[in-house]
Amino acid sequence: MAERRTGDAEFMRRAIEVARRGWGTTHPNPMVGSLIVDGHKIVSEGYHARAGKAHAEVLALENLKASVTETMVLYCTLEPCSTQGRTPACTDRILESGIKRVVVGAIDPDLRHRGLGIKMLRYAGVEVKTGVLEEECEDLNLIFNHWTNHRGPLIAGKAACTLDGRIATRRNRSQWITGRSARRDVMRWRRLFPSIAVGAGTVMADNPRLTSRLDGEQWCPIRFVFDSRLSTVRDPMPALYTDESREHTIIITGPQVDPEKKKCLVDHGIKGWILDDGEDGRPSLNAFRRRCHEDGIEGVFCEGGGHLLSGFLASGELDYLFCYQGAKFLADEDALGLFSGQCPGEISEGWRLSNVQHAVFGDDILTRGFIRYPASSREGEKKTMATP
Amino acid sequence: MAERRTGDAEFMRRAIEVARRGWGTTHPNPMVGSLIVDGHKIVSEGYHARAGKAHAEVLALENLKASVTETMVLYCTLEPCSTQGRTPACTDRILESGIKRVVVGAIDPDLRHRGLGIKMLRYAGVEVKTGVLEEECEDLNLIFNHWTNHRGPLIAGKAACTLDGRIATRRNRSQWITGRSARRDVMRWRRLFPSIAVGAGTVMADNPRLTSRLDGEQWCPIRFVFDSRLSTVRDPMPALYTDESREHTIIITGPQVDPEKKKCLVDHGIKGWILDDGEDGRPSLNAFRRRCHEDGIEGVFCEGGGHLLSGFLASGELDYLFCYQGAKFLADEDALGLFSGQCPGEISEGWRLSNVQHAVFGDDILTRGFIRYPASSREGEKKTMATP
Repeated sequence: MAERRTGDAEFMRRAIEVARRGWGTTHPNPMVGSLIVDGHKIVSEGYHARAGKAHAEVLALENLKASVTETMVLYCTLEPCSTQGRTPACTDRILESGIKRVVVGAIDPDLRHRGLGIKMLRYAGVEVKTGVLEEECEDLNLIFNHWTNHRGPLIAGKAACTLDGRIATRRNRSQWITGRSARRDVMRWRRLFPSIAVGAGTVMADNPRLTSRLDGEQWCPIRFVFDSRLSTVRDPMPALYTDESREHTIIITGPQVDPEKKKCLVDHGIKGWILDDGEDGRPSLNAFRRRCHEDGIEGVFCEGGGHLLSGFLASGELDYLFCYQGAKFLADEDALGLFSGQCPGEISEGWRLSNVQHAVFGDDILTRGFIRYPASSREGEKKTMATP
Repeated sequence: MAERRTGDAEFMRRAIEVARRGWGTTHPNPMVGSLIVDGHKIVSEGYHARAGKAHAEVLALENLKASVTETMVLYCTLEPCSTQGRTPACTDRILESGIKRVVVGAIDPDLRHRGLGIKMLRYAGVEVKTGVLEEECEDLNLIFNHWTNHRGPLIAGKAACTLDGRIATRRNRSQWITGRSARRDVMRWRRLFPSIAVGAGTVMADNPRLTSRLDGEQWCPIRFVFDSRLSTVRDPMPALYTDESREHTIIITGPQVDPEKKKCLVDHGIKGWILDDGEDGRPSLNAFRRRCHEDGIEGVFCEGGGHLLSGFLASGELDYLFCYQGAKFLADEDALGLFSGQCPGEISEGWRLSNVQHAVFGDDILTRGFIRYPASSREGEKKTMATP
């Protein structure tokens, strides 16, 4: 067993920071950060920037100005790959380099490769320590991991609500439940997810642009508009259909749509996905998930409104939740709730989050995690009422 | 201006820990912790344990095994008192001791004394640094500070709710929204507050004991039962009226009560406060606050249910909120909400918390803070509907 060395967690935390330089640019690859440390001093760093480009640990080795010595340790947030993909196997490069100790954060989530890289390094005589800040390293790649394990996109809901769970007043006002700092964090997640989804109501009420504006840089993900009746196609057209990024907009609708409205969209150069209707007469969200998979869209950040979020939940298609909460409350049972349409009789028949992460933004807080559906709904006996 | 010295915040944090040894035992006095530090080493500690006993800084001086030297620094979470109360003025003791530098966290909240102790020490040539972890030091004494500034009890509501703001399912089930660690934290606050309040519904549904059970020690605060119709007086009687701590139970009721039920309570030795009815036909919560003040009850920890909390809110008598949240949701608009009965049209017309503190307990989180009422309700134009 490897002797416990102090500092491993500290260096891994730094490697996670380094990995984050690839925030949003590595799809379909994971974010990975790597360090080479010599006697408690970081002597080289590398991160994966983009699919097809060098892997983090290879860059760390390339960036190293000195020769590898016996005392150098390589830190890597993700198990080094052991198979040749677009780039050569990292394990080969590590073995060639002469590095004698490797510290790994998360294990490769792909069952076909899981643990192989570590095994190969150990077989070749390299000391490998695993599980250092494993949870944090896994959290770094929640979209990639889900895509790898489930062969489909991570569909995440985002909401800002009050302590009493309201996303808007009874007059549908929601400005502002959370402060600037929390809203800036939303921009960060928009930058990470390859796509954003909103309902027709949100488009008509807010006319949003759904871009990520961070540090002067503007980024436009794929923008899904769920609009079964094409009610957003009206005069004036919303910004999503007319702005300079309109080629990133995709309308999700059903087979029965007004041909004139359809023509209007075609004229504007707006793409649409015509999906079969689900049980509720709206485009099937399972068909949406499958189509995302076909098109290689690894993640969807669903920003609401409440109807769309509740629809995703009712159909069992919501994988993850970002719940921002302001330290406020409305005390109004008729204000708009975060979710609706279900009727669990026991707390255990409700939903819970797993792999929960909290982040504080001034007085606001973000709780996020994977949604665990109650046993009853997993067994197909969904205790579900029609979404209002 | 005093030169900035590193470590002051660190030592003050330790002084706060020391102060907490008086958790719940110092009423009507504040918790105070004090250290004497010599060359970055803590050489003595003291805390205030109980009204009438020595003050923290005096104990720190008494506990000091060596003679005071020029390099010693005294840390104190609260401004030293400058007037003789039940014990001599601390400023005199500090000056006598020969201490030349004092670091203070919070300033005395009492407007009659505020800043006087610091002024006296400085006048006598002692270097005094203020404002070190001031917010944390103030937070230590939220009950005491409120009592001092408002001449009345701090009335705090406590609730455990889901991310979507529900305190129970539609079938009134609430076990368990939060986990053990969060529920243990509730015990800590029960130990701090001199009294706990619950509504008749909670008594009948849960038959609670409302004691604080911590580390093998059991503690029973004053237990208020709000029961305008004495509906809790029935066979079998609830534990609050029959257990070994029943002399700590006080029923809050109105003038129109069934004489037989009243007699039954008298026979059981249960105290009652008969308060005038408020606008809603229930005992006036403002009268309750005034009575607490008269009886020297500095704080009330109101554990619900939802009706009682909403009643306190509607009458403007809720000062503080402890909102525990589990990483769960029910997605049911008919599940029991945290608060009800109000109808703000804008977010700004709702309630917000100030001096917000967050604490994480595993997947659960506590958000707490002082309740800031919307401007409209402060001006007496309460946008309030009848509590259901």
